[in-house]
Amino acid sequence: MTPPLRKNAANVKDYQLKLELYRREHEKLKILLNITRNISRELDLNNLLKLIMDEVKSVLQCDRCTVFVLNRESDELWSRVAHGEKEIRFPSHLGIAGYVATSGQVLNIPDAYADERFNPNIDKKTGYRTRTIIAVPMRNKLGEIIGVFQALNKLGGPFTEDDEELLDAISSIAATQIENAQLYAEQKKTFDSFVETLATTIDARDPLTAGHSRRIALYADQIAQVVHLDDSERQVLRTAALLHDYGKIAVREAILTKDGKLTPDEFKHIQDHPHYTRSILEKINFSRELKQVPIIAASHHEKLDGSGYPDGLSEREIPKLGKILAVVDVFDALTSKRHYRDRMNLKQVLDILSEGGGTHFDDFFLAAFKKIPLNRLIEILEDDHRDVLDPQDLEDLAETDIAALLLALENPNPDKHQQTIVKKFNRYYSRAYLQTGNSSDDPVSDTNRRQSI
Amino acid sequence: MTPPLRKNAANVKDYQLKLELYRREHEKLKILLNITRNISRELDLNNLLKLIMDEVKSVLQCDRCTVFVLNRESDELWSRVAHGEKEIRFPSHLGIAGYVATSGQVLNIPDAYADERFNPNIDKKTGYRTRTIIAVPMRNKLGEIIGVFQALNKLGGPFTEDDEELLDAISSIAATQIENAQLYAEQKKTFDSFVETLATTIDARDPLTAGHSRRIALYADQIAQVVHLDDSERQVLRTAALLHDYGKIAVREAILTKDGKLTPDEFKHIQDHPHYTRSILEKINFSRELKQVPIIAASHHEKLDGSGYPDGLSEREIPKLGKILAVVDVFDALTSKRHYRDRMNLKQVLDILSEGGGTHFDDFFLAAFKKIPLNRLIEILEDDHRDVLDPQDLEDLAETDIAALLLALENPNPDKHQQTIVKKFNRYYSRAYLQTGNSSDDPVSDTNRRQSI
Repeated sequence: MTPPLRKNAANVKDYQLKLELYRREHEKLKILLNITRNISRELDLNNLLKLIMDEVKSVLQCDRCTVFVLNRESDELWSRVAHGEKEIRFPSHLGIAGYVATSGQVLNIPDAYADERFNPNIDKKTGYRTRTIIAVPMRNKLGEIIGVFQALNKLGGPFTEDDEELLDAISSIAATQIENAQLYAEQKKTFDSFVETLATTIDARDPLTAGHSRRIALYADQIAQVVHLDDSERQVLRTAALLHDYGKIAVREAILTKDGKLTPDEFKHIQDHPHYTRSILEKINFSRELKQVPIIAASHHEKLDGSGYPDGLSEREIPKLGKILAVVDVFDALTSKRHYRDRMNLKQVLDILSEGGGTHFDDFFLAAFKKIPLNRLIEILEDDHRDVLDPQDLEDLAETDIAALLLALENPNPDKHQQTIVKKFNRYYSRAYLQTGNSSDDPVSDTNRRQSI
Repeated sequence: MTPPLRKNAANVKDYQLKLELYRREHEKLKILLNITRNISRELDLNNLLKLIMDEVKSVLQCDRCTVFVLNRESDELWSRVAHGEKEIRFPSHLGIAGYVATSGQVLNIPDAYADERFNPNIDKKTGYRTRTIIAVPMRNKLGEIIGVFQALNKLGGPFTEDDEELLDAISSIAATQIENAQLYAEQKKTFDSFVETLATTIDARDPLTAGHSRRIALYADQIAQVVHLDDSERQVLRTAALLHDYGKIAVREAILTKDGKLTPDEFKHIQDHPHYTRSILEKINFSRELKQVPIIAASHHEKLDGSGYPDGLSEREIPKLGKILAVVDVFDALTSKRHYRDRMNLKQVLDILSEGGGTHFDDFFLAAFKKIPLNRLIEILEDDHRDVLDPQDLEDLAETDIAALLLALENPNPDKHQQTIVKKFNRYYSRAYLQTGNSSDDPVSDTNRRQSI
């Protein structure tokens, strides 16, 4: 039997050991809880992946962390943002991550180059030197592998068993949130593409307006970038732009397609379309973020001086984003290719816009419109024919904007540079098309009407 | 100075105390981590609230837990599911929860009836006896109060400080996930109501088809419930039903509205509408869950014997949900009120459906259709006039279904019960309407066409 003193001493050691175990365990739990809290706040997939990688990098004290997400449709592993800011994408059975995704095993590799599963090509390309690797599978609540967590080059030695355990725990939490973020992103994508398809369908009922809503959404977004609107306003603007002509579905086709002159009543009926847009869109249960879409979409024919329609709103009453729509709506109407005529001369178009400054259009957004880079302008003008655009031309036009083009067009003695800009621009703006109107696989291209709405 | 022995003894006590502290802290962290993991998996708001309440009830060892969510628009606190399965809703400043929502304080109340903020009326109504209450505010990542966590009647005594701390930690985690779930639900609601508005708009272009898509979505969902489809299939069916006639937007209005007899070419063009439905819907980036919508929506005119259109699919090729659409599409076409005639006699309608069994319609879904309760049938038939329905009639009709009604209609000597059913049913089915067609505030009600599509 141990004497009392010895027993106490042993006890103390026991307690010290136990306490140390608890302390370490405690530390881990706190880290986990903290990571969980942080990542559960993020529902945007890109931000989430970045956040997870940052957290893991800091917790494991390693040089890099990558989250690979498994894409079941293409059987690829991809990572949108890794430390080093590259997108990586490869078949889901290749390399260390591929091995983990396929086998479901945790790998802790103290010397990467000694492991035959390691693919040194990426190091070769990037000049990075991988030494140690730890990789764990990411499983969803059904136990299915949805990706792989990988950390590289622990500072000061190989990864420990503690690291394995911690990464395993983090990966299960991360998997849940990644699935949530994917669901959310998928839902948003469905909604966005539904809105876009609807807009395209409505425009396509008349070959003369085909692609109009999509183009004005693109122009409007360019202005949004020039004036630094935030993501949330850009989303509202884009949705309102795509839906601004939705009300045309309620305008009698007999009037829309009438060949002769419209009676005053018929004209009034057509002018009702923004009102219809609003009353239809108001029936939609838009999320808080998109609440303003109906009002903005319906204000694209309002004018600063109050002479617009449907409500004759004054400058102060017209919503800011509606003022952007007014500019791009007119610009697209004037620059659309019609099968019976070429595009209106661009200088003439810009003169018409400028004449409306202060009475019809907001000067601030007119000025912003003129700052759209010419490569973007061409891409949108030729939205239906992007395949004919020469990447070199686009690169050359990226450095200059609409305002500069206008100066070149107005200059009776343009310099070399101005001549080049005008030439490259006109290569697309003034080119002749085959007289096909829409692409022939479009189910609504076979409408047979001639008059612009 | 303490002698060595005494010192060791003291050390042991110290260690024991420390260890006990760690153990308790450890226990709490494990509980928190576990709860976090569980709730972060749930993105459905109703399930989430239920789950949180269950977890808290079990962790705090109390009798009830309620999560109140603050609705900023209506300034109300509400709880959809409390233990006891009631929905509670009240102004956000009332009662204990209201006090916490307003002040942001944690309340730990050992004797509810001694606290003047406590509202005993709910106890009076429910017969429950509240003794102890703990309530903590729920804050989002911006620190804004988004709701209140409340637990009642801890077993074996008042709530402790540990309980306060634990509930506070849980509430911050729960707040994050509740906001995620709200965002997700909002997005889904926006999408759903957008689809429904679109369907309504397209139907409303012709008074004869007004409300058609919405009604067939409702009928289809009744069949889905009879045959126990899961939530995910119900969502696909509902979306496909709402969008099945989307392709009509691509059919030339001149043909849709033609008064005289259609030429074979024109007839063929109209029969193309399910094909248009499909090719338009296929451009939408549907989420994994809704991937099948285009194919299902496009198959509503297919027939089991292969004589349908657009693809003449055989029984095995027609998607299951498309077979449901076929039944309800014809039923609604035959039972819609037209302004120039009353509804077709219901027995005649059902006879037409039965005659199509095995060649046009799937017998299984025909049988399921006949199991729709009569109150639901009436509600859908009268979808545009729900305000005229007498709740008592609906209750009386809830116990019986279409099959029973058919028996009653076929019985030359119906018994009392059968007579009552027929009478109550016909009160709505055969009632006369004012000849208004659509409601007059509908922006698309002023189309002026007569012919059914």
